[in-house]
Amino acid sequence: MNLTIATLWTGDATLGHLRLIDQTLLPTQIVWLDIRSQEQAFEAIRSLRVRGAPAIGIAAAYGVILGVKQKNPWNAETWLAAVNSTAEYLATSRPTAVNLFWALDRMQKKAAQLVQDHASGEPSLFTTQLLEEAHAIRNEDAAMCRAIGRYGAELLKPMRGVLTHCNTGSLAVSEYGTALAAIYTAHENGQSLEVYADETRPLLQGARLTAWELQQAGIPVTVICDNMAAQVMREGRVQGAIVGADRIAANGDAANKIGTMNVAILCKHFGLPFYVAAPSSTFDLSLADGSGIPIEQRAASEVTHGFGRQTAPAGVAVYNPAFDVTPAELITAIICEKGIIQPVTRDAIAKLLMS
Amino acid sequence: MNLTIATLWTGDATLGHLRLIDQTLLPTQIVWLDIRSQEQAFEAIRSLRVRGAPAIGIAAAYGVILGVKQKNPWNAETWLAAVNSTAEYLATSRPTAVNLFWALDRMQKKAAQLVQDHASGEPSLFTTQLLEEAHAIRNEDAAMCRAIGRYGAELLKPMRGVLTHCNTGSLAVSEYGTALAAIYTAHENGQSLEVYADETRPLLQGARLTAWELQQAGIPVTVICDNMAAQVMREGRVQGAIVGADRIAANGDAANKIGTMNVAILCKHFGLPFYVAAPSSTFDLSLADGSGIPIEQRAASEVTHGFGRQTAPAGVAVYNPAFDVTPAELITAIICEKGIIQPVTRDAIAKLLMS
Repeated sequence: MNLTIATLWTGDATLGHLRLIDQTLLPTQIVWLDIRSQEQAFEAIRSLRVRGAPAIGIAAAYGVILGVKQKNPWNAETWLAAVNSTAEYLATSRPTAVNLFWALDRMQKKAAQLVQDHASGEPSLFTTQLLEEAHAIRNEDAAMCRAIGRYGAELLKPMRGVLTHCNTGSLAVSEYGTALAAIYTAHENGQSLEVYADETRPLLQGARLTAWELQQAGIPVTVICDNMAAQVMREGRVQGAIVGADRIAANGDAANKIGTMNVAILCKHFGLPFYVAAPSSTFDLSLADGSGIPIEQRAASEVTHGFGRQTAPAGVAVYNPAFDVTPAELITAIICEKGIIQPVTRDAIAKLLMS
Repeated sequence: MNLTIATLWTGDATLGHLRLIDQTLLPTQIVWLDIRSQEQAFEAIRSLRVRGAPAIGIAAAYGVILGVKQKNPWNAETWLAAVNSTAEYLATSRPTAVNLFWALDRMQKKAAQLVQDHASGEPSLFTTQLLEEAHAIRNEDAAMCRAIGRYGAELLKPMRGVLTHCNTGSLAVSEYGTALAAIYTAHENGQSLEVYADETRPLLQGARLTAWELQQAGIPVTVICDNMAAQVMREGRVQGAIVGADRIAANGDAANKIGTMNVAILCKHFGLPFYVAAPSSTFDLSLADGSGIPIEQRAASEVTHGFGRQTAPAGVAVYNPAFDVTPAELITAIICEKGIIQPVTRDAIAKLLMS
């Protein structure tokens, strides 16, 4: 299976650099960017050349290494200052990306600890050790994806076709993804599974990204418009759906890309299972249910001028919610790296997350 | 209310001509075409500059007048030959448009009768009388739209917001349309009603045409992507949906633009009424149910290149059904010019159509 790892470090700490696929050019152009400075890393994150919460965190962690090398620190003190100033700079690239802050914070903490433990250490050695921390962030993410994939593949076993929405695969994370991890793992296990990818208006992550990465991996994929999902289910082309999540409340209500709730309602109507796959870090137990999840409203132009030409009259009103919240009662099971939550209840969620 | 009559005859039989809005340029350009020859009429129909079954029939009927005038017949015999050759020519513009053949056939029958009744008549007088037949086709369509509008508006009375899908308004027919006729009539009656228009992938008739004509008429309209309909319902922004139909089976199963069944399932889930508005000619009683309605598959490029640039990877599989069939049990009522069928049963349909 030709899995596209879209965000990676190549080489060692001294000579190496960050490489990533410019996701804004997919699927018509496959351009690898060689990122050799903190400024390039900043621009790649801000311009969405790298997207997906885990991938942004990984790119930022590697970006710290680039910034430190640029600043050429001569002792432990200047090295730590270089780490911190780079992290602070990169943190301003996307103001609301929680995973970005988390990864940068982890890098800063590791750096502080290295300096504390070896105050007279060599800056180049510190950098080598800090690169290991960035690799660890990537590797932990990969292990999480693998675990989700293993659990999810069990649930997909009865299916010949599966519907997915938006992009939850290797482009968004370090390796297998979340919902797509289940599909990749099923494919590795030898299961013959056809994927129907909702194109996912308005930004078409399904058509542009999911279709592309499954095609690269040699997994049969068919693109449909979002409004064709009911017909695909009615014709028996899929036996269920699997999607990701951005935030899950304590009762299992799950926020995800707009259109996800639509798919869940269709699955209920046709008696098909609807699965959500997401790392346990997606749960926000401070929210009793989904009513507390704010729905971001995005620019009208995403709908009216999505792809190069105007498709609605000038000045028309547009409603463009970026997310919806699928009620827990429509979710057959939630898959995370710790296991499967089924049925989806407050108690089952609490129990698995404590384990 | 500034209703756009997009297909009309201007002037008398001698000096007049066909005028229509080039629908392929909407919503970014409003271009009126002055059609003065059968060749221009043919091209306008073939290139979808005029679309919607009734509008095509009306354009073709007027096109017959243009062809006859061009051929300058000098007696009854050459006049009738000119009518027939023009009709045969125009019939080849869209090979599967039933309403096109029906309108041309009606014009030919009327012409034959005129000549039979007045074998020594003046060609110019025949043309004037034949133009009246074309006007009659248009006026009967308008009366049908008005009747649907009156019945439909009754059903919309409890609503503050209503969802619609695709385009079923004045651009497609001679006047008020079908589903949109109910909305226009409600607006005329002074009801404050906000319309949510599904953009209607892949060809975006909702965003391009419905939004434009409602905007022209001064009716509040908000464009959404098809996959946002569930969220709009969940937030209580609409209290129901109304759509058109292309073909309705004897039991009430209704074929319409792809995505219609999706809306019907969402309405059922949220406990909202789902209405279908269509002329009685839409019923095909030779079909016991919707399983006999073939689903046209259309070109992948409509999905992959619909917005002016490529939005899916080259060579990817695409499933692009043009229609779906909404089961009768999901339809709250069917509105036609003869009245309202509610609940939708085989008997209720048969009874109203016989009336």
